[in-house]
Formats: sequence, structure tokens, C-alpha cells
Amino acid sequence: MKKLVNNVDDVTVEQLKGLQLAHPDLLDVHFDPNYVTAKGMPDDDKVAVISGGGSGHEPLHGGYVGKGMLDAACPGQVFTSPTPDQMYEAGKAVAGKKGILQIVKNYTGDVMNFEMAADMLRADGIEVRNVIIDDDVAVKDSTYTAGRRGTGTTVIAEKVCGAAAAKGYDLDRLAALCKTVNINGKCMGMALTSCITPQNAAPTFDIGDDEMEIGIGIHGEPGIERMGLKSADDITELLASRILDDGAYTRQLSEWDPEKGAPVEVEVVDTTFQKGDQVIALVNSMGGTPISELYTVYAKLQAMADAKGVSIVRNLVGHYITSLEMQGVSITLVKVDDEILELYDAPVHTPAMRWGC
Amino acid sequence: MKKLVNNVDDVTVEQLKGLQLAHPDLLDVHFDPNYVTAKGMPDDDKVAVISGGGSGHEPLHGGYVGKGMLDAACPGQVFTSPTPDQMYEAGKAVAGKKGILQIVKNYTGDVMNFEMAADMLRADGIEVRNVIIDDDVAVKDSTYTAGRRGTGTTVIAEKVCGAAAAKGYDLDRLAALCKTVNINGKCMGMALTSCITPQNAAPTFDIGDDEMEIGIGIHGEPGIERMGLKSADDITELLASRILDDGAYTRQLSEWDPEKGAPVEVEVVDTTFQKGDQVIALVNSMGGTPISELYTVYAKLQAMADAKGVSIVRNLVGHYITSLEMQGVSITLVKVDDEILELYDAPVHTPAMRWGC
Repeated sequence: MKKLVNNVDDVTVEQLKGLQLAHPDLLDVHFDPNYVTAKGMPDDDKVAVISGGGSGHEPLHGGYVGKGMLDAACPGQVFTSPTPDQMYEAGKAVAGKKGILQIVKNYTGDVMNFEMAADMLRADGIEVRNVIIDDDVAVKDSTYTAGRRGTGTTVIAEKVCGAAAAKGYDLDRLAALCKTVNINGKCMGMALTSCITPQNAAPTFDIGDDEMEIGIGIHGEPGIERMGLKSADDITELLASRILDDGAYTRQLSEWDPEKGAPVEVEVVDTTFQKGDQVIALVNSMGGTPISELYTVYAKLQAMADAKGVSIVRNLVGHYITSLEMQGVSITLVKVDDEILELYDAPVHTPAMRWGC
Repeated sequence: MKKLVNNVDDVTVEQLKGLQLAHPDLLDVHFDPNYVTAKGMPDDDKVAVISGGGSGHEPLHGGYVGKGMLDAACPGQVFTSPTPDQMYEAGKAVAGKKGILQIVKNYTGDVMNFEMAADMLRADGIEVRNVIIDDDVAVKDSTYTAGRRGTGTTVIAEKVCGAAAAKGYDLDRLAALCKTVNINGKCMGMALTSCITPQNAAPTFDIGDDEMEIGIGIHGEPGIERMGLKSADDITELLASRILDDGAYTRQLSEWDPEKGAPVEVEVVDTTFQKGDQVIALVNSMGGTPISELYTVYAKLQAMADAKGVSIVRNLVGHYITSLEMQGVSITLVKVDDEILELYDAPVHTPAMRWGC
């Protein structure tokens, strides 16, 4: 197992200690339970924005804690949901008078645990809303997930909602905004190689030297199709055509209804990208693919968007939501309006995303 | 070969096209010969800062073209020096009245070709200074290199000199600054796996599943020692102890003397890090190692620096100077004074480094 680790049982703690040492101006890392909080929290003038999930997807989520993005992150063990007590302690640490928005990737464990934490926080008198990201257009229902998985749109949702919280949005408006970002975000990924979890010390799945998998999840969950290696353009076509044409499936998981103990059913809307749409594009390395190769994917993606009349107005090309050292790429497109674009452009300073300050 | 490429013969051009499409606000890519220029150049009020080298180390150098860093980059084919005509055309495109600083990593082909380009530009009446980066403390003389190789300090030199050029430093002062950064910068890397060049489609070197190589070059050049896999802390100790104790070797390659056609011999100085020194630390993925693992390395590095009384005042943890998809890490420490630190902190906006704007 070719990893820079000391003790596989402590890998998350080791990495969090380094995050703390490298970024003492931006965040504090807490242990037992493990969570990361932004400096300057709690702040009664803003909703606290929290996310989290299994480790192994860095810089998501700890790398997005700081100014103008997340106020707290709850890292679970590698590919394992964080526990409700992590989320509860994180929530208590950062909640001011305006409550908490929890941004939750749609994995069953994450959804359940964030909802349990929300109940615990509500019992303490803290208002909490959970918005679920379920943007992966590859498959409906998968390992660890009922419905669509939550992937790349999470990065954009954290940036946009972090900016909106800093601007003073109240919890209702912030939750509505997060749902809007999610409903307008579509992602799909592919793998050239498997990742290796430190605990298992072996590939999560077997894949031949001449094979790739389209539609893979960020934990190596099965995709749509295993096939022979294709060119970067063909791979981009497979991903982006599905993203650009998606719309038939209507997601219903955008928010958890604590009264019903079930997802809120949202209005059925056609979210297919249309001519004239403006989008933010994220071309993301699954971890082991170097940034140079992502630019080849970006070129084809932009050509395809252009052909459909969809305008990429901002882009991120790099390592944003990874799957350990897996080689491969994911593409995310999020349709934006003027409000969302302005929030996206707002200053941010976190370990892994920074501009305007 | 598990890469996102279309045609291996066009891989550099493919990637440059994507860079152009993704960052039209920051840079222009030119083809035949290939070079990248920053928007707003030429500018008579500033020295033009140019770098370049073989591709495969992205985001170095094209990812650092923009505002407050490089004014042009010359990408060669993968792991192949760019040609003098690339550098000459780039120089002509960006040179104003204050001349050109060329920052050159110490590889024989790069040094020769940048000097040929400098001569061609001088023949056109453009003042040019070449400063050579030779910061790799692993080995003296290596494949492709007489003397020490140029590695991580290049990133810091490009940032600092780009800021100084934007601030109006004249060419003499800028070249002196770049030499100061180089002399005070030390780097060393290690590999867990080999990289694979698109042309060869096979590992550059063979390495066992239970082996690693300490002191590797960014093209997979041999290091100091092949050994069994060690823990992240032990690996960091091997790299950082050599960096922190380096000083006996005095580098002489900081600048090329066009009169003599040979490197300028610099004063013999002891550049060993001392108690009380302030440094910028770069903990860099060789490409395939995920950012999470870099934080484990950072924690040990900081503990070692602290133990020596060396204070890490800024850090970069991520993918900055890579070797395709090679797994591994390099560590760079650059001693800084107040002037260099202020320049490092100055606003920058490039595809791969951005803050303050």
C-alpha cells in the first residue's frame, strides 16, 4: 500500500493534526469527537453552515472550513459516515442565534446521522435545517445510497451557501438557496483505477489494465458500465452528454422533513440544461489524475456546452472532491442565476479555496 | 496506460487548449511555437518574468501565468526542454522596456536553450537575465543535470519575483532577488510509484510494491537510495533532516554569465537553516498522492522545524510541481526576510495560485 501514513487506524486524526498546524489562522480542529470549526464562530449574525462525511475526499470538507464557506466540518473515518455526536458537538460549537444549515451528501449513513444530530441540536433549542445533495446523474440507488449520490455539486453548494450565510441570509432563505443549487447541479464521474482504503490496504474494486468504469461513485461504488479504455474526448462525451441531457429523473431528497421522518417531496421540475443557461463547471480529479489531464477534459466539455448553447461562466479545474488516490475524473455543471453567481464570486479563504482575500 | 489523453503526440497541445479555454481572462496560449502569455503584456512599467521547461509538472509553469506571477511560460513536450524559438517568441511577446528575467530550473537542456533564447533576444535589443534554480539537496549531478536539480523553490521564486516585477523592481534588483530566493531554498522529494510518460506508455522506472525511492527527481531521475516502504513520519524525517542540515554544498549556478558562457561563480556562503529563521514551506504532491496524505507530512515537518527553532511562517500544501501521476511527496523550505515575505503575500491571480484578488 503506497501511502504516506503512520498508523492506518489513526489516519484521519494524523491528517487533521496536519490541517490544524498548517492553517491555525483559519480553523480549529477538535478531537474526541473529531470536528473542524472556523475561527470566529459562533457568530450571532450568521447562520452556521456545516457539512461532513467520510474522510478520503479531501479537500472536501475540512479544506473548505474558514471564511466565507463552511463554519464546521465533521470528518468520519475513511469512507465512513461521521457519527451524530461529532455533528452535535460541531453544531453546538458554531451555532449562533440564527441556527444551522447542514449540507448533507446523499449517503444513507450521512443522512441518518445528520438528522439525528439535528434532532439533538433542536432539543437544545437550536434551529437546524438539513439540505441533501443528490446530484450524481449516473445511477439511481447505489451502494450506501437510496436515490442519487451526492457528489461535485456539494463543493459549489458549500461555496455559495457559505457566502450567503456571511451576507446574513436567514435559515429559511439559506435552505431554499441550497436546494436551488442542488436541483440545478448535475455530476458524473469515472475511474481509471481503484482507490485503496488504508484499512483494507487493497484495491476497493478490481479493474483491468485496459478497462475503465463510467459512472463510478466517490467510494468506488459501481457505475453504469465497465468498458475498454477510451480517449479523453470520448470519456468526456460519455459523462457530459448524460449531464447535459439529464432531466427526466426528478429528485425528491432535497430536504429532510423532521415531522415525517422522510425526505420532503419537492415539486417535479424539469432541470434539463437549456440553451442560454449559465453554468459553473467543475472538472475534478478523483485524486490520482494530474491536473494537466483535466484540461483536456475541460476543452471537450466546453465544446459540448457551447454546442448546446450552455455557457460556462466560471470553472474549477483541479482536486476538489476526491476518492483517495483513484485515477479518473468527475464533471459537475451547476446552473446559476445572478444571485448564485454573485455569491459564488464572493471572497473566500479556506485551505483549499481562496479568492478575494 | 491510464491517462485522460486523446493523441499522445499532441498531449501538450491538447492540455494547453484546455488551459486557454478555462482561463481566457488571465492568459493567451500561442501555438507553433507553443507559449503562454499573461493578459496585459507587454507592459513597459515592469520587467517581464518568464519561465518554462518540460511539460508534465503542472501546474508549473503554465498554471502560474497571470497577474502577479509569471508573464509567460514555455512548455516543452513532456519531460523535454522547450526550444529556444519558443522562449524567443515568448520573450518578444511580453518584453517591455525593462527587460526580461528568465527563471530556469537547472536541467542542462533548459539552461542551454534559455541562454540561446536570451542571446537571440539580446540581439533584438532586449535586456535579459537568466537566474537558475538549483535547490534539490538530494544529489549533485544527475540525469539531465550538472549540479543540483531545480525543483520546488521554483514555485516560490516565480511567486516572489512576479510580485516584485509588478511592484516595479528593475532587472538587476529582480535578478538579485531571484538569486537570493534560490540560495535560500532547499528541496527534496521521494517517490512511492513511477510516473508514466504518454509517449512511453510504461513506467519510467521499476519499483517494487514494497519499495520507495528517496531523493528522486521530478522526471523520475534516480535518487539517493531505494529502500523498503516507511511511515510518513520516517519519510518526512529522511527528507526534512537533509533539507534542514544542508549547507556544506555551495551552489554556483545561480546565474549564467553570457560573457563567459558559463555559470557565474557565487560567493561561498553557508546557507544552513539557523535557529530563528523564518521559512515558507511547500509540501507538494508528486501528482498521484492525495492532499490528505500531505497533511500528515506537514505535521511532522513542522515538528522538526520547531525542534530546530525554524519557524514556518507560510505554507503551501497541495499539487504545485508534479511529475505526472507519480505518487510521492517533495518538501521545500525557503528562508525568507521581510522583503521576500511581503512579496510572497502580495496579490496573485493565476490558474493555480490565487489570493488577494
